[in-house]
Amino acid sequence: MRNFTDKKSAHKKSVDNKPANKKPVDNKNRVIVRVPGTSANCGPGFDCLGVAATIYNYLDLTLLRTNKFIVESKGAGSDKLPRNRRNLAWQAIKKLLEVTGHAEEYKGAIIRMKSNVPISRGLGSSSTAIVAGLTAANAIVGSPLDKNELLTLATELEGHPDNVAPAIFGGFTVSVMNNGGVQTFSFMPRVKLKLIVTVPNFELSTRIARKVLPKNVSMKDAIFNVSRASMLIAALVEGRADLLPLAFDDALHQPYRKKLVPGMTEVFEAAKSAGALGAAISGAGSCLIAFTTADSGLENKIAAAMVEAFKSHGVDSKALILNVDRHGAQVMKH
Amino acid sequence: MRNFTDKKSAHKKSVDNKPANKKPVDNKNRVIVRVPGTSANCGPGFDCLGVAATIYNYLDLTLLRTNKFIVESKGAGSDKLPRNRRNLAWQAIKKLLEVTGHAEEYKGAIIRMKSNVPISRGLGSSSTAIVAGLTAANAIVGSPLDKNELLTLATELEGHPDNVAPAIFGGFTVSVMNNGGVQTFSFMPRVKLKLIVTVPNFELSTRIARKVLPKNVSMKDAIFNVSRASMLIAALVEGRADLLPLAFDDALHQPYRKKLVPGMTEVFEAAKSAGALGAAISGAGSCLIAFTTADSGLENKIAAAMVEAFKSHGVDSKALILNVDRHGAQVMKH
Repeated sequence: MRNFTDKKSAHKKSVDNKPANKKPVDNKNRVIVRVPGTSANCGPGFDCLGVAATIYNYLDLTLLRTNKFIVESKGAGSDKLPRNRRNLAWQAIKKLLEVTGHAEEYKGAIIRMKSNVPISRGLGSSSTAIVAGLTAANAIVGSPLDKNELLTLATELEGHPDNVAPAIFGGFTVSVMNNGGVQTFSFMPRVKLKLIVTVPNFELSTRIARKVLPKNVSMKDAIFNVSRASMLIAALVEGRADLLPLAFDDALHQPYRKKLVPGMTEVFEAAKSAGALGAAISGAGSCLIAFTTADSGLENKIAAAMVEAFKSHGVDSKALILNVDRHGAQVMKH
Repeated sequence: MRNFTDKKSAHKKSVDNKPANKKPVDNKNRVIVRVPGTSANCGPGFDCLGVAATIYNYLDLTLLRTNKFIVESKGAGSDKLPRNRRNLAWQAIKKLLEVTGHAEEYKGAIIRMKSNVPISRGLGSSSTAIVAGLTAANAIVGSPLDKNELLTLATELEGHPDNVAPAIFGGFTVSVMNNGGVQTFSFMPRVKLKLIVTVPNFELSTRIARKVLPKNVSMKDAIFNVSRASMLIAALVEGRADLLPLAFDDALHQPYRKKLVPGMTEVFEAAKSAGALGAAISGAGSCLIAFTTADSGLENKIAAAMVEAFKSHGVDSKALILNVDRHGAQVMKH
């Protein structure tokens, strides 16, 4: 007589008894992870706010017990990625293996990357590589680290939590640095937003974008940002779109960076005139990002206005219309 | 036959037919309002955050068509309040009557004040007078202005929205100044808090407490406060007490003001050692305020530790254990 218990036993048996040599051992050591692109600062939240967007990079990682090391990449910036052990995803993988005591076990890897996030544009491309490497390696060694622990490692590797925090947690993130540690709060806004990102045809290095910032700022500008960042968080968490139009403005970094992004002020104005709630530099640039409510139906109009304003300053750009990603880094297949 | 309709008609008739001379005309022109004391800044939210507390000042106002002008006051600071037309509540009443077109109608007043909020200690005493005057006069002339309009007038009179905003709306408030206007978001935190306020035996003028502040601050300190204020709002709105211990710290104003409040740092440390989530100068001082969750049961221990720490620096103080006021200014009797 066959019954459900028998069926289950039979199934279990067939799995348990599967000969080890039927599937290569590496299959247990392979995962695919997906990590969102991110936009840091969001205007007033300089060096502490970030948001994950529905644009993704993928890492297909196989860890090897041999020294074999292969990097393959497709998509955005793939011609520029190092294919040796300087590869950023590998740096993150190696770090995770060291911290979890698996560095001696896995000496090689097959790294296959597929990238949609434009590089050196302020959309957290390098953070996706770090977060993908950590998340993938952590999954393969049995997920000993939780997301907060991955955040600590990712922040060490990236130098700041602005992009790695939303890349790990998804949603909007508030990060506080304290004695070298980092604490992040992640939330999905109760206002459903569309993110309109204009990607100009030039790169901007974070190093240069940091160099133009002053060491000191006026107390007035500091208070300006404290009040707007507070209002931005309150409005997003409580779902008060009516409070957002004042909340995306910044006095701490964008005024100094506008010389690096021709037409920045005009693109912001064009976005607002087309109905955006606000606009900001995405991270350290060069992308500019505008925000509107998902039900406004204005995203295409805003995108066209921003591209047009960039064009009138001699900058070709393309627009991406994205949503807020709610998942952060995800293991797709193990 | 008497029925309900008859009864109602009878009642209505008796009211309508009441001879005008039976009650003095001034009764229509009298209200009593209650306004909470407030604590501005709450650590990182310099010049933009505030909280209303369950300690109240009362104004019993009668507006007169004659020039008669009487001020009576009882309680905290009553010996120092001007009893002539320089009285702050009257300044606010006059402003409201001018703005609403009633200045010619009411030339005099009987102002009776009962104060529990200590003066010149950073608990928004002057704001209670302004908000009480505006709220009372507005009620008497038929409430033509809403709370946002009262906020605009109160901010003009006080010079900043830090205390008048929570005094009007109650709860925690985030205020943003923009082109001279002010926008405030008010919310009750989802973390139920106890506020422990230590009131030292010396006054501190806001003017002096502002004078010690630098015109410029480091970018690092600005970012410190942006991140903590953002975390504070997020934690309070979402009810995440676990995120609060980092969120009350400040780098923009308290380090400069500690010389004006002997023992400030030690009182903060004592509060935290006794279990407080954080501590801050209340407004521009001299009061210090600590925060704990309502269910911690630690408020008395924290209060004792703060008073003791003040004492070891030669400062006598008394502690107030308060809740967050949820109503703001209220008309009690009209």
